Amino acid sequence: MRTLIAITLLLLATLAAGQTPRQLNVMPMPSSVQLGTGQLLINQSFSVAISGYLDGTLERGVQRFIAEVSQQTGMRLKPTAAQDSGATLVVHAEHGSEAVEKLGEDESYELAISDSGAKLTAQNPLGILHGLQTLLQLVETGTDGFSVPVITIKDQPRFAWRGLLIDVGRHFIPLDILKRNLDGMAAVKMNVLHLHLSDNEGFRVESKRFPKLHEMGSDGLYYTQSDIRDLVAYARDRGIRVMPEFDIPAHSRSWFVGYPELASTPGIYKIEPGGVDTVMDPTQEGTYKFLDKFIAEMAKLFPDAYFHIGGDEVNGKPWDENPKIQAFIHSHGMKNNQDLQAYFNQRLQKMLTKHHKIMVGWDEVLRPDLPKSIVVQSWRGQESLATAAQQGYSGLLSFGYYLDLMWPAARHYAVDPMSGAASTLTPVEKSRILGGEACMWGEWISPENLDSRVWPRTAAIAERLWSPQEVQEAGSMYSRLNELSWRLEWLGLTHRSHEVPMLHRMAGVDNIAALRTLADVVEPVKDYTRFENVKTVWDFRAPLNRLIDDANPESETGRKFQDLVQKYIQSGYQDRGAEAEIRTSLTRWRDNDAKLHPVLQGSFLLHEIAPLSDELSSLGAAGLAALDYLDKSDVPSESWRVQQLAQTDTAKTPKADLLLVVVEPVRRLVEATARQTAKP
Amino acid sequence: MRTLIAITLLLLATLAAGQTPRQLNVMPMPSSVQLGTGQLLINQSFSVAISGYLDGTLERGVQRFIAEVSQQTGMRLKPTAAQDSGATLVVHAEHGSEAVEKLGEDESYELAISDSGAKLTAQNPLGILHGLQTLLQLVETGTDGFSVPVITIKDQPRFAWRGLLIDVGRHFIPLDILKRNLDGMAAVKMNVLHLHLSDNEGFRVESKRFPKLHEMGSDGLYYTQSDIRDLVAYARDRGIRVMPEFDIPAHSRSWFVGYPELASTPGIYKIEPGGVDTVMDPTQEGTYKFLDKFIAEMAKLFPDAYFHIGGDEVNGKPWDENPKIQAFIHSHGMKNNQDLQAYFNQRLQKMLTKHHKIMVGWDEVLRPDLPKSIVVQSWRGQESLATAAQQGYSGLLSFGYYLDLMWPAARHYAVDPMSGAASTLTPVEKSRILGGEACMWGEWISPENLDSRVWPRTAAIAERLWSPQEVQEAGSMYSRLNELSWRLEWLGLTHRSHEVPMLHRMAGVDNIAALRTLADVVEPVKDYTRFENVKTVWDFRAPLNRLIDDANPESETGRKFQDLVQKYIQSGYQDRGAEAEIRTSLTRWRDNDAKLHPVLQGSFLLHEIAPLSDELSSLGAAGLAALDYLDKSDVPSESWRVQQLAQTDTAKTPKADLLLVVVEPVRRLVEATARQTAKP
Repeated sequence: MRTLIAITLLLLATLAAGQTPRQLNVMPMPSSVQLGTGQLLINQSFSVAISGYLDGTLERGVQRFIAEVSQQTGMRLKPTAAQDSGATLVVHAEHGSEAVEKLGEDESYELAISDSGAKLTAQNPLGILHGLQTLLQLVETGTDGFSVPVITIKDQPRFAWRGLLIDVGRHFIPLDILKRNLDGMAAVKMNVLHLHLSDNEGFRVESKRFPKLHEMGSDGLYYTQSDIRDLVAYARDRGIRVMPEFDIPAHSRSWFVGYPELASTPGIYKIEPGGVDTVMDPTQEGTYKFLDKFIAEMAKLFPDAYFHIGGDEVNGKPWDENPKIQAFIHSHGMKNNQDLQAYFNQRLQKMLTKHHKIMVGWDEVLRPDLPKSIVVQSWRGQESLATAAQQGYSGLLSFGYYLDLMWPAARHYAVDPMSGAASTLTPVEKSRILGGEACMWGEWISPENLDSRVWPRTAAIAERLWSPQEVQEAGSMYSRLNELSWRLEWLGLTHRSHEVPMLHRMAGVDNIAALRTLADVVEPVKDYTRFENVKTVWDFRAPLNRLIDDANPESETGRKFQDLVQKYIQSGYQDRGAEAEIRTSLTRWRDNDAKLHPVLQGSFLLHEIAPLSDELSSLGAAGLAALDYLDKSDVPSESWRVQQLAQTDTAKTPKADLLLVVVEPVRRLVEATARQTAKP
Repeated sequence: MRTLIAITLLLLATLAAGQTPRQLNVMPMPSSVQLGTGQLLINQSFSVAISGYLDGTLERGVQRFIAEVSQQTGMRLKPTAAQDSGATLVVHAEHGSEAVEKLGEDESYELAISDSGAKLTAQNPLGILHGLQTLLQLVETGTDGFSVPVITIKDQPRFAWRGLLIDVGRHFIPLDILKRNLDGMAAVKMNVLHLHLSDNEGFRVESKRFPKLHEMGSDGLYYTQSDIRDLVAYARDRGIRVMPEFDIPAHSRSWFVGYPELASTPGIYKIEPGGVDTVMDPTQEGTYKFLDKFIAEMAKLFPDAYFHIGGDEVNGKPWDENPKIQAFIHSHGMKNNQDLQAYFNQRLQKMLTKHHKIMVGWDEVLRPDLPKSIVVQSWRGQESLATAAQQGYSGLLSFGYYLDLMWPAARHYAVDPMSGAASTLTPVEKSRILGGEACMWGEWISPENLDSRVWPRTAAIAERLWSPQEVQEAGSMYSRLNELSWRLEWLGLTHRSHEVPMLHRMAGVDNIAALRTLADVVEPVKDYTRFENVKTVWDFRAPLNRLIDDANPESETGRKFQDLVQKYIQSGYQDRGAEAEIRTSLTRWRDNDAKLHPVLQGSFLLHEIAPLSDELSSLGAAGLAALDYLDKSDVPSESWRVQQLAQTDTAKTPKADLLLVVVEPVRRLVEATARQTAKP
């Protein structure tokens, strides 16, 4: 409980009598914090010295830290570490990290800041890198200058595996964008970039052994081997492992464009939308010969000990329809397609072992005939993860962390790998739950909007995986997430700044104020609704330039408005400050359609959102009318209320794949008019 | 006059009866435009074919064009040029450009767009690159989709030399930022990047021959030779020459840190603010031996035919104080220091000729003893340029194009190389005026704010140098500049997007709305006022994180408010629409200080702007009171008016090196209250 107490102290720490409690804007929250009194000024004489162990990773990490402090403060600082013992910050690592970053290496650090200097100590450079990120987040603009508080932090991760999957198969993401996402990951202490490198729509790595994989299996957009080496080194410098995933035997059409002989169904394959289901043929020795050579090549390119083979969503049809494959199943004493996939996985696993790799696969690979050394990544849930742990398998949670489902950060934040079925595991079983991964599946992402789908929400998942389980308060999380979100833009991420250019494209005119007002209160539809709304077949080549492609997964304006209405209602409609703010918003929304209408008419990209604009105006008007009733303690007619509620019901239905997020709070105001007598 | 008529037609062209006149958002304005009826849709089947001459520059240019169309529309287009004769756009160049881009190469192009396709023809790839930029600017979002209008454009530059100087000596600018500025230059058809590579504060190129130049003469921030080659190739691909400037014999302290023997005053030199004046010693043979080897190295690194030796602002003191130098002057029959500099320049000129370079220098180098082949760059004015032309020298205008003086775009736009003294030159003399260069001197720039100092104002200068002299209307220029400004952000320039992160740093809190309201109506002080306000000595190491470092050189809000007040007054105070807009702004300003006050108190970076915030509120109140009088056709007391005018006088004085740009229009409203009887 020491941890909890320390955190509570942190959140409520009062700087001096009469000042408001302060919250430290650190994310993920460290496991132990003791806040002192006073501050250390960060001015132009700020310097860093490295004592103890020194290597290139550490040196570059310190240089990056100085550059980031410099950028965030606008001060020119001495760009390299000094040997000066009088440096503002002294960094001390005991020894080096492993040559290739290993799962479970010590990542702890201790940061002690007094009003005259700071000391950061760790076992190895990994801990130092994390500590530097914490220190960077502590820098704030104050009345006397830039400063960090006097504080002592002892910190280490809860889980050893804290990953982000980016699906570059369906939509290619250029190298520089991956790099800035690595910077974002490092900022929130994540340590695994899981690259989903091949899928039906694209094969994204150069293979020198089988060049038709990337040449014919992509639209010309892929990473060269030199790109990959560059990326791996970039990640390594930030304490991040890079795990490749080549998804087989399903999700593999891109392989068959150049090598149709690998497919279970003979034919000519193209990268195109829809098309026939197809799965690799696990009954031919040729397939294994191919995969062995391929894995040999990729095992060298990706130094990480883990190698993900996908293994999800195998559609049995191509196997069912191929008599040769069915004959193989029978002749080998297998019962069904699942047995055949297990056979395929066993052979893969042996191959991977030969190339010194540990196999990782999605839920479906879990079969008792596989050795316990493999790792199961669960998209199905904690139950599945717990089952694996009980059987002796290591596991990762991704269920609940799918960023493409457009959930709010708080919903991801509430998902804990150790909750549900996992909470009843024995300590040994629990230790098999290595951590989790946020998953950015790529059906609806583009280089333009990727950052806004990943950030800042991923930071909430990063905190879940790093911080003590008890750190759970959503209000604190949002407050810190918001601050972090600004800081992430310093790293070059564009999750905020992408919005304006996208709105300009859609509007085709200079003044985007009214469009922005609407865009600020819509969110993309959730879960798989967008797929369900696709008229024909999902087309990976479709332009991603609709408002849904720009709209943030979680509307900050919506969340704040909801809080405000809650506050107002809880005050018994007496909080005049809250009411005034609510009125300002409602008035802007009511009047917005008139301004936006000509813009919507002028752009083919915006025709579809006209009904939303209209509804936002109606909601504004309804909310204002409700406020008037509440102000006058007047009860409107039942018919008025019924009519307004019917209107909010209509407004709840998504249009243009977008949800108006202010429907619910406006509805609450309308409903409140019926309860005037219940006023406290 | 054909040109003028064509342009007038363009600006007033009516698409169809009943529609408002349209303006094409092309900048610089082409020399001849004929707008037809209809449009060519740009959809996902958009493709480009190259017929005729083909080389790498052309091919990459077309690929870049496709990528930019793709980015601006959010559509995935076929990334490479097709051989298909049925392509949407057919590009045809007659022949290749020179191996090293030459001054005066043909840059003309012709673009013909029908409703079924487009054809772009040019003599060589340079013209094609320009034509592609025009086409890109024509793409607009419409009711039916993305489109370009049916149009025929014949275009060529007015001047052959259209440059941008970036001073990377005083503050280093990283390579990637230079590259995105090259993208911006290409967008507005500029063709020379002039790099001011050395000054007292820094020597910014790696010299393998004299490594102490960059090693000791900089803070570790310099371009490697490989960086330079990369930059030159990047520029070449965009039709841009790169001309190096090494400023000698003055502005050269950074040389003396590693090589003090070159200085006129013996001593130990450091890169530090202030310090002694110092100038290279032109009386020693060692200086020329050094320079010959140095120029030999740099002449190879920079392939351009022109080589800038600076030559400006030689302070005679170090020469006066050195008896050996004075003896040299007398023994060589020279009269003064100017003669000595002329001697230095003559020797430099011969050296440059030996290395196949043409010498360029600032005004001061102009002396009759130099051959006519040199080029004079004038910071002194058209007079100086005209004099040079009369004497047979080629010249470039930079007077009037100093971006660091923080002038509005219209003021730069009004400066014409052929106006003033130059207008009376003979045609032959006029032909010696090669063009001009926008100059971004580096005392107050940083990687963070450079883009916002260069863009979008440089586009106005680019138009001056490209378009026919008759294209002069500031209203049209601003309207097109504004549209272009958005497009430039697609290229990665941050002149707009830099603002929010900088304001966040200053505020240190999440809500920057009130700070932004103030920031939107201030401009940095003009000319050299900021230097004059420096208390001690200008320090190149000082943080550039004040509001002045963020504030745009020209306030769009201010300009629009001024126009609105003008419109309102001209309507005899009858334009209710304008009045309502004016009221909204004035009210926001009046109420802003109350919101901003706590933010200002919380941040040391913002204390200095408290008086501005206070004054903005007063101006808002004064303007609203004036409007009330005007509304009621009421004349306020003389004392009220005097008091308000006194207040605006106070508000005119800069604070925190910033000017409140709404002072003048508010003053006009107050003054108008005295003239109620003169109402039309």
